[in-house]
Amino acid sequence: MSDKHLSSQFDSELSAISTRVLEMGGLVEAQVAQAVYALIHFSAETAGQVITQENRVNQMEMEIDRDLSNIIARRQPTARDLRLLIAISKTIGNLERVGDEAARIARTVERLMNSGLSNHLRLPMSDLQFEAGLATNLLRQALDAFARLDAVQALEVIKGDNQIDAEFDGLMRKLVTYMMEDPRTISASIDLVFVAKAIERVGDHAKNLAEQVIYIVKGADVRHTSVEGVQSVVS
Amino acid sequence: MSDKHLSSQFDSELSAISTRVLEMGGLVEAQVAQAVYALIHFSAETAGQVITQENRVNQMEMEIDRDLSNIIARRQPTARDLRLLIAISKTIGNLERVGDEAARIARTVERLMNSGLSNHLRLPMSDLQFEAGLATNLLRQALDAFARLDAVQALEVIKGDNQIDAEFDGLMRKLVTYMMEDPRTISASIDLVFVAKAIERVGDHAKNLAEQVIYIVKGADVRHTSVEGVQSVVS
Repeated sequence: MSDKHLSSQFDSELSAISTRVLEMGGLVEAQVAQAVYALIHFSAETAGQVITQENRVNQMEMEIDRDLSNIIARRQPTARDLRLLIAISKTIGNLERVGDEAARIARTVERLMNSGLSNHLRLPMSDLQFEAGLATNLLRQALDAFARLDAVQALEVIKGDNQIDAEFDGLMRKLVTYMMEDPRTISASIDLVFVAKAIERVGDHAKNLAEQVIYIVKGADVRHTSVEGVQSVVS
Repeated sequence: MSDKHLSSQFDSELSAISTRVLEMGGLVEAQVAQAVYALIHFSAETAGQVITQENRVNQMEMEIDRDLSNIIARRQPTARDLRLLIAISKTIGNLERVGDEAARIARTVERLMNSGLSNHLRLPMSDLQFEAGLATNLLRQALDAFARLDAVQALEVIKGDNQIDAEFDGLMRKLVTYMMEDPRTISASIDLVFVAKAIERVGDHAKNLAEQVIYIVKGADVRHTSVEGVQSVVS
């Protein structure tokens, strides 16, 4: 973000926005981790915090979007800078959806606790924790790649998303087995199905973020492209 | 899209893009309807068509996005025109996600048919059809609102999404009952849970589309705003 041709004020505006995107990213990453913590420890307090913070994430998205529009309208960005600004707009849309997933998990925790079913529910805790660990790691890597405009790391994120998808499939099979063994847990298990799905989506969003990084750095739109296709763009 | 201050060429570029957005919208609307048809009639052929067309939707998204960037870079859009261009970019992102949901449903149909389970599966067909009807109607209304830049109709779409959410909750309860009655159907029923969820999401995307219409017409960002809040912006 330090092109010589940029006016220094434009430059500092861009860098201020990037900082806020990373701040927003850090916030939603923490939210996902907290939501999973709330699930595993059945902590109503932590779940409540995640739900409260969703609002802050939404506000950040709208503020950054407004600033982006203002910058584009006031400055006359070059094609390259415009690419960056549009990619940032898509990036914060993605981050907001990560915040949504975290809030979804937190609301599920509240519902599970209210139903009282949580007590005799056999939970695939370690699997959920493992899947969530993969997803938050991937999200952090994607944010790092954005901060350093590192297309190679972005490629790694795109590859990593496949592992989460495989983990999700295994978790589904396990949940189905639990439900068949004890049909009383079906209702609560369906909630966990959605939790697992929300975590899997966090991985998808990390991948989308990584695709935007490659768009900024390489100028190539690699959405809907095979891993091999992305690889040949990056290298 | 016929502001006096626009150069006529810019005007015609904008109108060409709007036409393509509506074309893309019509395509994804048809895809959702086809995917649900494939489910209800267990038609592998129709499911296959939906999956094939996903690619076309993805291509359309990328093409329109590229054209939008080119327009912004070449012209120096006023704040109001820029608002329109950015809203269009978000709109096509939403439409692409509708296409994803349709493809997800179609892939589920294929899986259900391959598993052979579909034969003795008790399906809440009429409920799924009803939910899908609501969702495709809402999507069509949202596209109409976009075509006519009609904020009042957009508001109706935002209100209508609540009905789909309620329908989804009822469908979930029914599926849970079926699973408890016959645990052999759990695995297939989970697939239907995801179908119902995908349809519910189509409603969410229609709502997001409607929010963009209000942003274009009123200049107010009404994402994450209560129905009452949106109402006071529109009227």
